[in-house]
Amino acid sequence: MLGAMQDFELRVMHLLDHAAREHGQRDIVSYWADGSETRSNWAGVERDARRMAKGLTALGLKKGDRVATLAMNHGRHLVSWYGAIGAGGVIHTVNPRLFEDQLEYIMNHAEDRVLLYDAMFQPIIDKMKSRWTTIEHYICYDPPKGSDVQGFEDFLDQYDNDFAWVDGDEREPCMLCYTSGTTGNPKGVLYEHRSTMIHALAEIQPAVFDFSPASVALPVVPMFHAAAWGIPFASAAAGVKLVYSAVNDPAVLTMLMNREEVTHSAGVPTVWLALFQHMDATGEKPEHLNVVTIGGSAAPRAMCERIMKMGCRVNHAWGMTETSPIGTMGAPIQGWDALSLDEQLDIVTKQGKVPFGVELRVLDDDDNVQPRDGKSSGRLQIRGPWVVKRYFKAEEDAVTEDGWFDTGDVAVIHPDNVMQITDRAKDVIKSGGEWISSVELENAAVGMAEIAEAGAIGLPHPKWDERPLLVVVPAAGTSLSKDQVLEYLSDKVAKWWLPDDVAFVSELPHTATGKILKTALREQFKDHKLPTI
Amino acid sequence: MLGAMQDFELRVMHLLDHAAREHGQRDIVSYWADGSETRSNWAGVERDARRMAKGLTALGLKKGDRVATLAMNHGRHLVSWYGAIGAGGVIHTVNPRLFEDQLEYIMNHAEDRVLLYDAMFQPIIDKMKSRWTTIEHYICYDPPKGSDVQGFEDFLDQYDNDFAWVDGDEREPCMLCYTSGTTGNPKGVLYEHRSTMIHALAEIQPAVFDFSPASVALPVVPMFHAAAWGIPFASAAAGVKLVYSAVNDPAVLTMLMNREEVTHSAGVPTVWLALFQHMDATGEKPEHLNVVTIGGSAAPRAMCERIMKMGCRVNHAWGMTETSPIGTMGAPIQGWDALSLDEQLDIVTKQGKVPFGVELRVLDDDDNVQPRDGKSSGRLQIRGPWVVKRYFKAEEDAVTEDGWFDTGDVAVIHPDNVMQITDRAKDVIKSGGEWISSVELENAAVGMAEIAEAGAIGLPHPKWDERPLLVVVPAAGTSLSKDQVLEYLSDKVAKWWLPDDVAFVSELPHTATGKILKTALREQFKDHKLPTI
Repeated sequence: MLGAMQDFELRVMHLLDHAAREHGQRDIVSYWADGSETRSNWAGVERDARRMAKGLTALGLKKGDRVATLAMNHGRHLVSWYGAIGAGGVIHTVNPRLFEDQLEYIMNHAEDRVLLYDAMFQPIIDKMKSRWTTIEHYICYDPPKGSDVQGFEDFLDQYDNDFAWVDGDEREPCMLCYTSGTTGNPKGVLYEHRSTMIHALAEIQPAVFDFSPASVALPVVPMFHAAAWGIPFASAAAGVKLVYSAVNDPAVLTMLMNREEVTHSAGVPTVWLALFQHMDATGEKPEHLNVVTIGGSAAPRAMCERIMKMGCRVNHAWGMTETSPIGTMGAPIQGWDALSLDEQLDIVTKQGKVPFGVELRVLDDDDNVQPRDGKSSGRLQIRGPWVVKRYFKAEEDAVTEDGWFDTGDVAVIHPDNVMQITDRAKDVIKSGGEWISSVELENAAVGMAEIAEAGAIGLPHPKWDERPLLVVVPAAGTSLSKDQVLEYLSDKVAKWWLPDDVAFVSELPHTATGKILKTALREQFKDHKLPTI
Repeated sequence: MLGAMQDFELRVMHLLDHAAREHGQRDIVSYWADGSETRSNWAGVERDARRMAKGLTALGLKKGDRVATLAMNHGRHLVSWYGAIGAGGVIHTVNPRLFEDQLEYIMNHAEDRVLLYDAMFQPIIDKMKSRWTTIEHYICYDPPKGSDVQGFEDFLDQYDNDFAWVDGDEREPCMLCYTSGTTGNPKGVLYEHRSTMIHALAEIQPAVFDFSPASVALPVVPMFHAAAWGIPFASAAAGVKLVYSAVNDPAVLTMLMNREEVTHSAGVPTVWLALFQHMDATGEKPEHLNVVTIGGSAAPRAMCERIMKMGCRVNHAWGMTETSPIGTMGAPIQGWDALSLDEQLDIVTKQGKVPFGVELRVLDDDDNVQPRDGKSSGRLQIRGPWVVKRYFKAEEDAVTEDGWFDTGDVAVIHPDNVMQITDRAKDVIKSGGEWISSVELENAAVGMAEIAEAGAIGLPHPKWDERPLLVVVPAAGTSLSKDQVLEYLSDKVAKWWLPDDVAFVSELPHTATGKILKTALREQFKDHKLPTI
């Protein structure tokens, strides 16, 4: 016996129809790379997405075909997500900071047929065009005056909005994102309409993004990073006003935040460091900001503290491209206001809890599920409706036999079910049979005012297997010694975690998404001799 | 081409698994009719639901079989929802205030096999037992000492919790609720796992119930009323602590709210009137209350104002059994805090906006879709994944050819997409070709301190077709004249809306859910002569 409620496919285009109908006048603001601004709203996004979908269909786009973007954050990029999906296609956001070999591999593997891009990435297009084998159409969002490239608005102007979204099964794909792995070829995650919709509904809840028609969001997280954390979908579901900036200049961000009365923002830790520097230099601050989501990598305690002292709630998120990306989110618990700032920080600096839908487990090396005791660390696995099962075009599933995805992270789960990442599995430093968390060492180190950034790696040691080397970038205008660093760390980490040596560099190697590139760092220091050997 | 995210059926039991795993220690408090209290938590509800499901299976319950309850709000009732559904059954909550003929019809029509009930309803059981043809097992939640009826806890004690939830398609039914219509036989709405899950995810968002692990909810809305507004499901999804009271004594509710630090409550307007009286008499007030949801019938402006002055947000909800039940919800918009109280009240006293998922339209008598201009009223229709398509055992769909459910309400939609119910279609007073809203007349009248309750009906009029009669219950200890009432109303409604006569009574007839029973009122006054004829 089945029930008899109404049929309703969980298709992404319902989101845009809803936003246009119920929140049509809420603004979508775009600050462009050249300092100009444009303004649309959800009704305008819907109108333009229909025109774009009609245009893509005229170009011959078929259901399931991929439409790539190489672009920063702006309203035309948002239109493209919905336009490509509304035409039955799959939006494929490409990270412009990837290396050329990766750009070649990813776009040929995806078989992208159309590429939409920002003028600032024209040099990449010119260099890569001959290596991309499937792209038939190039469309520039902001063509310079007098250039002969196809412009986005000119393209739209050829079509009216008399177009019905392509319909179909809710498990058809709508989006493709590649992981920027540090080893091997990038892997594509093919999100479904259904997975995207359940994820969007989960995201707007108070314990995750806390999105409502009262929210004004400025997502600093790039639209090419991990499905933009789902914000283009969640904000349509909740009727959020969006403020986009194609540049990440903290002066611009602060100006936009104050003028547009931004209540919600989201970005990786380095974004907030830059904002702090701007605040210190100018005395400006975001006046209306209320909820700050930090993800991509772990947020240091000092960063969380400063943002909370600004009167904001800190959402400390963990997730990955393979998880759409929300895995966990830190959020206030019952009696939050009665906790001291320190108690709140103890909670916020961990990675938070799963929203309904996803489930975590931690396994030791023998695949035993570890207790949630806050001490037993191991490999973190996740499952749920918005977690990858199989990578795009892969021959085999990416999950264990019993259906769990191994995140590659090392974590503990605390008795209150709050998860804490302790390391990437491949970055953990194995010393005398115990694990030293490179992440915790780094976080402790950057608490020192004289340290701008720090990376910890394990170097071979005859007695202990591995011992930690800390590689430090001193803050501008400071001088620093190994002894000063070790002295600072001495009451912050266990004694046997203290690095065997400290090396000083002017900069660390990074991945395309801003994380420390540990493979390059290990390569750089592979001949370094620890003084303890 | 399909995507390749993980499989995950939208089955209700995932909610309880989540709540038990991630929020297992959050309390479920029960205050019983005899003044005693019990305390469980989400882990306990999950354990007991498995024991119950095992027991029901031992009794021979098969997939899709109905399990009825005749009970107030308490933790054992909550266990029963999940226990019945976990066993593959359908939980059928029955309103104990229904008339005997309705109780007979509903339970025989539902073919309930098991009935769980509160001891206070034993007289109903004794009277109805011979008329119910399908019930095989009676289980009492709180059997009096020495009675020989099967007790709920004794029943559970026979079973351990080694039971796997019955699995299946997400469109299988999980719950059955009958509408307590004022005419004809009650009709059953058979909710699906899928519809219930999408509704639960929509409910926890900030613009609806605003549920999170920081919330403590005391739902005054009875668990037998319109799927308890979905709160037993939404609170599991969000990890809410629940406080239940089997009695609606405002002194008990206030005590529980303050002792358990209740942040969220929900109930029909009369609940809040009773609470106000208690506050006035004792000086007590709910100290932690933050979000108050009012639904079931329209909340008067004075009620909204008083609750907002208590520092609470007022969620003014509209919905019906056929819509799971959330249709619309009033919620703060951007810049809320900068609005004056009067401006906020102008918004809050309307019924709010649809959350993502459902869609509204208003049709005139010729089935033309009316503009969203705040003026053009007509029949309100709704569609979406948690709206009924066909009543239980019905031969035909309950929706229009193009898939909309006609709510029987008359409404306007404002330019900001906020919906306002103006009347029930069958209660609207048709005067000279124009419509007078009986609801607005009543709401205006109860704004007068000397009026406890008021009902407006149309009486036949030779010139105008119908003209309004206002039937008034004076407040205790007041005296009141027709002229005083008309004088009070004179600047509150249009002049041609002013009642042609005012009648005074000591009480009004009500439906089982506390609404004014207009059919009975019209019958009572069918021979009343308007002085204007």
